[in-house]
Amino acid sequence: MREVFQQELQDVQERLAEIAALVATAIDRATTAFNDSDVALAEQVIADDAKIDHAAQSLDELAIDILARQAPVARDLRTVVSALRISASLERMGDMAEHIAQLARYRFPEKVVPKSLRSTFRDMGALDVAMADKLARLLLTEDVTLAEEIRDEDDRVDELHASVFDAVLGETWKGATIDTVDATLASRYHERFADHAVSIAKKVQYLATGDWVGATAE
Amino acid sequence: MREVFQQELQDVQERLAEIAALVATAIDRATTAFNDSDVALAEQVIADDAKIDHAAQSLDELAIDILARQAPVARDLRTVVSALRISASLERMGDMAEHIAQLARYRFPEKVVPKSLRSTFRDMGALDVAMADKLARLLLTEDVTLAEEIRDEDDRVDELHASVFDAVLGETWKGATIDTVDATLASRYHERFADHAVSIAKKVQYLATGDWVGATAE
Repeated sequence: MREVFQQELQDVQERLAEIAALVATAIDRATTAFNDSDVALAEQVIADDAKIDHAAQSLDELAIDILARQAPVARDLRTVVSALRISASLERMGDMAEHIAQLARYRFPEKVVPKSLRSTFRDMGALDVAMADKLARLLLTEDVTLAEEIRDEDDRVDELHASVFDAVLGETWKGATIDTVDATLASRYHERFADHAVSIAKKVQYLATGDWVGATAE
Repeated sequence: MREVFQQELQDVQERLAEIAALVATAIDRATTAFNDSDVALAEQVIADDAKIDHAAQSLDELAIDILARQAPVARDLRTVVSALRISASLERMGDMAEHIAQLARYRFPEKVVPKSLRSTFRDMGALDVAMADKLARLLLTEDVTLAEEIRDEDDRVDELHASVFDAVLGETWKGATIDTVDATLASRYHERFADHAVSIAKKVQYLATGDWVGATAE
């Protein structure tokens, strides 16, 4: 029984890592679609979000099934509840990628990003991709140094997010109002994506270090 | 045992309704702080968000404790898992109110909202308050007509959200770039607040009507 349970927990972990990998692909493509006004790629990100939603929901059903059959307690219970939380965060990360892709699609054939912000958004996107990739590895390995790296990357995303506001509110900003709106929203989506990654990384770290309450806190 | 369990579930329900009431107060005050540039009220919303976070976390601990002690199955298990989801959404609704209050604080002593958008934001805020109030009642009564009303109100919030974009992107928009940024973000926060309310209402409705999978889906 115990062995079956451990196998099931490992299955949960692997499925979470798979969803994190899907999310990494989504934000990578969304960043390219946004920066290069690639509407076909944007459409693909939007269509593929349903796969992420489906994978998250099916993982949730597995987790609830485990709760019903195994009635875990203590650390095992925290692990399953954390998995539900992590899956919700991954699903939201996918939504953020989809929202960024939607901005590219709405503006097409116009470009979304003014030249002056292109490198900022490319850097934010690259950081988000790196974070999601590390999440996938962290979920499999519980190597907590990855959690710390994710936190550092989030600090850099926050700096870039602040720099977008500095740019659009600065005296040299030449963007139209729609550029201001799109830059504000896209930056917010990248920042939220990174926040979710940190929240997941913390949960894995808490579980690995035995802080059970932290592991299941929102 | 069964009686104790039912009592505990009722306790969970009442606590969720209490958090919903805190959230209703938060968005009400945040809307006023934002529209009237009332920085003292904004500070209060920001400070009070910690109470919402604490209430949500303590509810989560109770739910996890119930899972551990009672090992519920079937509908009872779905109810407890839904409670964890609902508490996470309520906590995020509190964050949205806090973000709106932060916009007012950052801009003070300047006004955040240009006159032309004041009634739009007042209406969005009023709808959000009404939705949160109804959520509190829905959580206690499971009266699903309330869930339908919440969905209708969300449609109106979405319309107002779209009208904010129409306004800032219209030819008569006279706002500075910072007004565009603030209006974009505030409108997004109101819209997300309403989305979370709908997501909670659906979960309660699913539970009441026996759609267990829907009740625990994200």
